Amino acid sequence: MNIDRASLIPALKNIATRLRIDSVRATSEAGSGHPTSCMSMADITAALFFAEMRFDPKDPKNPESDRFVLSKGHAAPILYSAWAEAGAFDRAELMKLRELGSDLEGHPTPRLPFVDVATGSLGQGICAAIGTALNARRIKSDYRTYVLLGDGESAEGSVWEAADVATVDKLDNLCGITDVNALGQSRATMWEHDMGQFERRWKAFGWHAIVIDGHDLAQILDALAEAKATKGQPTMILARTLKGKGVSFVEGKNGWHGKPFKKGEELERALAELEKQFVPVPEAGPAANLSGHIPKPASKPHGVDNPKPVAPPAYKMGDLVATREAYGTALAKLAEADPRVVALDADVKNSTFSDRVEAVAPERFYQNFIAEQVMVGAAMGLAARGAIPFPSTFACFLSRAADFVRMSAISNVGIKLAGSHAGVSIGEDGPSQMALEDLAMYRAEPNYTVLYPSDAVSAERLLALMAYHPGPAYMRTSRPKTPVIYKNEETFTIGGLKVLRESAADVATVIGAGITVFEALKAYDQLKAAGTAIRVIDLYSLQPIDRDALVAAARATGGRLITVEDHYAAGGIGDAVAEAVAGDGFAVHRLAVREIPRSGKPEELVERFGISAKHIVEVIRTLKV
Amino acid sequence: MNIDRASLIPALKNIATRLRIDSVRATSEAGSGHPTSCMSMADITAALFFAEMRFDPKDPKNPESDRFVLSKGHAAPILYSAWAEAGAFDRAELMKLRELGSDLEGHPTPRLPFVDVATGSLGQGICAAIGTALNARRIKSDYRTYVLLGDGESAEGSVWEAADVATVDKLDNLCGITDVNALGQSRATMWEHDMGQFERRWKAFGWHAIVIDGHDLAQILDALAEAKATKGQPTMILARTLKGKGVSFVEGKNGWHGKPFKKGEELERALAELEKQFVPVPEAGPAANLSGHIPKPASKPHGVDNPKPVAPPAYKMGDLVATREAYGTALAKLAEADPRVVALDADVKNSTFSDRVEAVAPERFYQNFIAEQVMVGAAMGLAARGAIPFPSTFACFLSRAADFVRMSAISNVGIKLAGSHAGVSIGEDGPSQMALEDLAMYRAEPNYTVLYPSDAVSAERLLALMAYHPGPAYMRTSRPKTPVIYKNEETFTIGGLKVLRESAADVATVIGAGITVFEALKAYDQLKAAGTAIRVIDLYSLQPIDRDALVAAARATGGRLITVEDHYAAGGIGDAVAEAVAGDGFAVHRLAVREIPRSGKPEELVERFGISAKHIVEVIRTLKV
Repeated sequence: MNIDRASLIPALKNIATRLRIDSVRATSEAGSGHPTSCMSMADITAALFFAEMRFDPKDPKNPESDRFVLSKGHAAPILYSAWAEAGAFDRAELMKLRELGSDLEGHPTPRLPFVDVATGSLGQGICAAIGTALNARRIKSDYRTYVLLGDGESAEGSVWEAADVATVDKLDNLCGITDVNALGQSRATMWEHDMGQFERRWKAFGWHAIVIDGHDLAQILDALAEAKATKGQPTMILARTLKGKGVSFVEGKNGWHGKPFKKGEELERALAELEKQFVPVPEAGPAANLSGHIPKPASKPHGVDNPKPVAPPAYKMGDLVATREAYGTALAKLAEADPRVVALDADVKNSTFSDRVEAVAPERFYQNFIAEQVMVGAAMGLAARGAIPFPSTFACFLSRAADFVRMSAISNVGIKLAGSHAGVSIGEDGPSQMALEDLAMYRAEPNYTVLYPSDAVSAERLLALMAYHPGPAYMRTSRPKTPVIYKNEETFTIGGLKVLRESAADVATVIGAGITVFEALKAYDQLKAAGTAIRVIDLYSLQPIDRDALVAAARATGGRLITVEDHYAAGGIGDAVAEAVAGDGFAVHRLAVREIPRSGKPEELVERFGISAKHIVEVIRTLKV
Repeated sequence: MNIDRASLIPALKNIATRLRIDSVRATSEAGSGHPTSCMSMADITAALFFAEMRFDPKDPKNPESDRFVLSKGHAAPILYSAWAEAGAFDRAELMKLRELGSDLEGHPTPRLPFVDVATGSLGQGICAAIGTALNARRIKSDYRTYVLLGDGESAEGSVWEAADVATVDKLDNLCGITDVNALGQSRATMWEHDMGQFERRWKAFGWHAIVIDGHDLAQILDALAEAKATKGQPTMILARTLKGKGVSFVEGKNGWHGKPFKKGEELERALAELEKQFVPVPEAGPAANLSGHIPKPASKPHGVDNPKPVAPPAYKMGDLVATREAYGTALAKLAEADPRVVALDADVKNSTFSDRVEAVAPERFYQNFIAEQVMVGAAMGLAARGAIPFPSTFACFLSRAADFVRMSAISNVGIKLAGSHAGVSIGEDGPSQMALEDLAMYRAEPNYTVLYPSDAVSAERLLALMAYHPGPAYMRTSRPKTPVIYKNEETFTIGGLKVLRESAADVATVIGAGITVFEALKAYDQLKAAGTAIRVIDLYSLQPIDRDALVAAARATGGRLITVEDHYAAGGIGDAVAEAVAGDGFAVHRLAVREIPRSGKPEELVERFGISAKHIVEVIRTLKV
């Protein structure tokens, strides 16, 4: 934008004042919210939206648009106000803040077209910003990503995971701004206004750090220009601000976090102070209408992301292949065929076999080292910009990113998580490396797809389905090698299951998934030899679940359903089946791991913790048939 | 220990060689494990255990003992070897590493008396070490805490949360050592041997940082002495090492992570190289037997931690009190009565009401700022040393520490978590602030106690039970004010429930907890007015659960059980009840939140998301009675 500073700064100052007024009004109208957290960042926001970023307020999802992530999501009102000021929607909507009928929620969610990922759990936005910055590189765009953090938020470890990854990846298209207003929710922040504490940390982590007065628009504009000119490393602008800036009786004062001004005298006094802060601006020229002069994103033709066809699985029945290895093979095939597919690792690529993606598409393989939060957060940012990201690690270590999983569900963003080494069947490494609560975690999120293949063919088929199914998804894979039981042509569906053994004489249905499918098949053989027939189901899709098929199996087998899972008893296969059939009055007998396990050989542990063929046979024999 | 360096160093060198030999032998015998990760830290371990720490190998739990936390838990074999060398157990046991019958598991767990907390999920040990260091302050002991980290591990954000908290708390009784062996599992680490990267980061975070050669025993001893002499800040010793140190064909080489030497020629070659590294030591004097000269911990009388009696709750029936506030009140009373009780906050003390503990016992109130991982990790360390720690924050943000919760279950350590602001009933702040999957998370852990009070009296009573119940526990509290429904004298039990309404004519049982108890009571009133009787249960203890009482209620009310919960459908109250009654063939009708919610007024959301009295009444009316 070609506007002289002398005209630009007063115009921005007036926008900042309007953003403050909106934030104050909207939160008072709502009766809740965080006006003072908005007020500290108003000058920064005005400069970013109306003198720095390239975007189209009417087309916020434009692939070439600069991105803005509000990591301190509780300042949502000023984000909404900025977009209204830019012309994205009618300013009157702002007064519906936090109402059930409005998408202007208490914290931003992607129900709003200009929000990439939901924020409001601190320390996550900067991880998502890593993802949007990586995506620019993926699509060879020069769009920039800006992320605004709170100072209190900087205590979250995830912020420092992001700091490392941005440095290693040399993300000079990423600019952070920390709003150092020195006040947290309940007290002064850790470092208050000691700007050197912040500067030392960000520099030590390899960022270009710039300390400024966050209410001085000239300093803000200079810092943003310096950030843009800085190559080979990301920039963090550390802005010293005052919480509640602009209203004398709250400015820099503790005890005002998350408190709107009381309607009536208190609100009127605040507004009167703010109204006085408008300054004269030129009546003509761009400064008179900065919203009308926001630079549009470059419109350049993007390659159409038509994936090439993928060859079907190429296994032989009976081959011994761990599903984690089949996952790596399948993902590499998919990555070769579709440029949107990317993989993210946390230094276990040789265990999850995601190194096969690195081998075929190194430019779409992102190494996060041992930092699961930024791995999942970056995937959220990538997915929000059109990539199909597959973050993977040991299933138990994905729990490190549980809060990110929660926020990915709220964002309803298409990340495709894969967790390997599930259950006691990993063996000697012991309980710290065993995921036994992962199914509970993902099933709890109502919009998560949860898949659990038992063999290499189903792993490859389900991976392809998962990639193109909308929304977030999780695949659980296993460490032990298991025989291929499906033909390469076999088809699977999200929400489906496979009946592997069935006869009119079945006395019960045994439902497994992953490695317990093979325990069920062993039990089938043993019982058959003794003259008892059972039905065996491979429940490869836990969520959604094939309710009708489960009810039909229950009806056909005397209502006797036995689940068996390499997972703790709560939240896994047993509970999933139990809920599916409850409406028809059926109950479920669950075999699951019911105590904290320990080291041992895989087969010893499957036996010791009650989920082996022997235990299935015992249950069937005690059934009153 | 008064031994001249000239005698001490060769003696330590020989111990380091023995530790390497043990680690190599044990992992080869087990056929799995991480010998090279042990070998890089052998010299450091020898110096720590046999020239620095005060402890009694026969009494590892001594309250005055120095603590050693192996944050890089995969190096477990050398930890075991060090304790065997010290005389804690027979060295022959080491060869049972990773066997089902041995407590020498793949990663350390507190099944071993010298392990405070389980490690093996990286970045957690240093958080626990914060807790053991804080505990020294609590009991006015001068014991020191040593924590050994891997370099790859330093990418975990939790490490930097710990770094900040240790600095703010000026923990000069804490000494970290980072084993910078430059190789991760799958590749070189982020910063390889660039020691300046580590030094800059730790210094920026306020630690005294010392860079040394981790194989030079004189440098190690000097650094440990310097750490001990450093006051007002924690020390991090950054030790440059070689992975696989001591065996030429693996030393510093990639591709050897987690690989034992193959029995036979490969193992013999490694052992032959190591055996050659023994050096002459004096045949008499302490250096000839360092294990016999480990300085014992100070034996000083500790105050007996007999808690004073606590006054009963002091509420009036019908008073409106949020359970989160009752939690704060109750915890402050308990903290006044029992010096073992401590509270940990993540800058929401004014929302969780843990600030009431700060008011009465500021020296036992630990502020972690917005860093949930270190808050929970520190609680684990505190609990392992005899404190009764209550970490609390919004229930949804405790999910940030999900992997710590998992490890606390493996550790079976008595942390007492409290999560406030559960469910859609928080209202306008929106989904990012609502915990709707927390019950699933805690219930999944088989040894977690899970409590969910509905009113102030039950909150206070359950908090006291939780404090003294062995093992980890979680209490869920609510934001809205709810009426007091129990008399102050009412008694509760872990594993109990309360039948609030009951008659011989009940057509169904409605089971709620927390705020849904009041929806159930409203439904009761409405149905009663229409001539229908229902039974109402307050299921305040979800785990353990009162199976017998639930089955009895099912039997008495035609097998019709309806659960209603401010939680997603999977993993919560519905699933808990369903599993409890499944053995008796009963199924459960579940009312729960089944989609991602949004901002709105609490009562609007309870209605919109299907868990209000109206929905209960509708279900009852459609039952075929």
